[in-house]
Amino acid sequence: MESIVTLRKSIDKRLAQLELKAQPKNLYEPISYLLALGGKRFRPLLVLLTAQLRGTFSSQILDPAIAVEVFHNFTLMHDDIMDTAPLRRGQPAVHEKWNQNTAILSGDAMFVKAYQLITKISPGHLPLAMERFNETALQVCEGQQLDMDFEQFSEVSQTDYLEMIRLKTAVLLGFSMELGGLMGGFDRKDQQQLYEVGENLGLGFQLMDDLLDVYGDQQKIGKQVGGDIIANKKTFLMINALDLAGTDVRRQLNVWISIRDVDPKEKVAAVKNIYDRLKIPDLVKIKMNTYFDEAFRLLEIIDCNKEGLKIFNNFARGLIVREG
Amino acid sequence: MESIVTLRKSIDKRLAQLELKAQPKNLYEPISYLLALGGKRFRPLLVLLTAQLRGTFSSQILDPAIAVEVFHNFTLMHDDIMDTAPLRRGQPAVHEKWNQNTAILSGDAMFVKAYQLITKISPGHLPLAMERFNETALQVCEGQQLDMDFEQFSEVSQTDYLEMIRLKTAVLLGFSMELGGLMGGFDRKDQQQLYEVGENLGLGFQLMDDLLDVYGDQQKIGKQVGGDIIANKKTFLMINALDLAGTDVRRQLNVWISIRDVDPKEKVAAVKNIYDRLKIPDLVKIKMNTYFDEAFRLLEIIDCNKEGLKIFNNFARGLIVREG
Repeated sequence: MESIVTLRKSIDKRLAQLELKAQPKNLYEPISYLLALGGKRFRPLLVLLTAQLRGTFSSQILDPAIAVEVFHNFTLMHDDIMDTAPLRRGQPAVHEKWNQNTAILSGDAMFVKAYQLITKISPGHLPLAMERFNETALQVCEGQQLDMDFEQFSEVSQTDYLEMIRLKTAVLLGFSMELGGLMGGFDRKDQQQLYEVGENLGLGFQLMDDLLDVYGDQQKIGKQVGGDIIANKKTFLMINALDLAGTDVRRQLNVWISIRDVDPKEKVAAVKNIYDRLKIPDLVKIKMNTYFDEAFRLLEIIDCNKEGLKIFNNFARGLIVREG
Repeated sequence: MESIVTLRKSIDKRLAQLELKAQPKNLYEPISYLLALGGKRFRPLLVLLTAQLRGTFSSQILDPAIAVEVFHNFTLMHDDIMDTAPLRRGQPAVHEKWNQNTAILSGDAMFVKAYQLITKISPGHLPLAMERFNETALQVCEGQQLDMDFEQFSEVSQTDYLEMIRLKTAVLLGFSMELGGLMGGFDRKDQQQLYEVGENLGLGFQLMDDLLDVYGDQQKIGKQVGGDIIANKKTFLMINALDLAGTDVRRQLNVWISIRDVDPKEKVAAVKNIYDRLKIPDLVKIKMNTYFDEAFRLLEIIDCNKEGLKIFNNFARGLIVREG
């Protein structure tokens, strides 16, 4: 049974040792660059911690766990092009530091690296791992497509928004836990239930992100407070505010959404004030906690190793910000 | 034993029936669009014809064969963005018909579809098929990167050029035959030799393409004669001409390469004239035939079904343009 600190070290060490050829430099350097920018390594940790729910940690499960992190970073490399995001983890995004073509092609190569890593799973597990990884990867593409589509829509329903974040974010956390379950030796039914645990955690964390973007501590969240409001993003908060607002307040919100050349601070303060009046934070917290509660309820009814469960819970519950 | 016509029909039918969801439309429509533009289906035919060298055709090998075609089309979708190519098979490229983001993301989804199809290989063959497919996909990325890198170089050596086309084009033909060999039931040594047959064919065909671009019949090759000369591409012809030319002719060539705002016809005629004087076509034909001869020599020493071999040879030899 390994601690989170130990597992994280193993993940970072393995990522730093990823076999990448030296040439062509423009193909492989961006991959090392992006992976070296860090990150919480949330997904591979989820794989390893889930495997530990049944057995003990074995270094053989490290490569497939790393595959999920490499895949996730591949999606970031391509998403940053599509979203014209200049920064990633506070550093220039690959398409900015190099150029767009490099980010396209290095991303493609990075996607293959993810497949190489997942292929290192034991041969008996490979067909199922591949089938589920492929399905998940396709869903993540669907989620990104919906996210881009929604930018063009004047209205997005709550249901459609939740489906979008499910595809874009939650299914990969679901897959991480399913993969951990597969490698840890859980039966298929438990693996599927572990998938649901991860999916629910993912939905909860995404709503938490939406909430923290407006109500979080700038230092803790490491980005500008109200960034989603400034960018007119149709987050769970905005969708619910538009749903709940009366004619008058809705008109005000729509003015703030459509207005250009406005002081960002003024805009954030005004929209936040509307959110407060409509008690949007309470509503989001209730919805978010529904997902978290469901995740931990589902996990409880799976037969787990007690110490593994304690470590898992420490990790997952530790990520949930209750204040703010 | 199936004829080329029958196999091609099976391939086209299966491609048209590829399970693609209806939504999100912007993710999946470009995939169907690109696949429906046609093409020779050279790579999946190579898979199926190679499998037939040992056994008979079974519909179970169709999906992995199709995987190679879908992968190839994915690379076209992304390459067309990088090369800012407006047309693909005479129709608007995906990034032109939709937009660049769509071409990036649909391409990614298409890559996953290729993996889904190859995953349908029998479970016993999956680990090797995945390992080899991953390696090949990575090499194809390397080839595209080198091709882009070479655009920035003032000089490219023959060796470097041949390595670039090996990676960008030939390894996928090698893999097609290796995969056919694996599914057809050849032993590992034969599979590897079949790979070499495909790789040599690929190198030969690429040199043939370079030659036909200048010396081909516009109607037969379906594109503008001399396109590579107009685009200042460092083809096998140009590299050899620069190698062989004396100081004077080399200076003339460099003027034609660096000149802007010139009548394309005049440029093509002038460079072609230099090629003729240096006997470049003969040199390219000799090199090209070396690859083809090696391919057929290697194939001959593999124990094949006679009828299958006849069909294979008809197909492969039929693609070699000896005149021109």
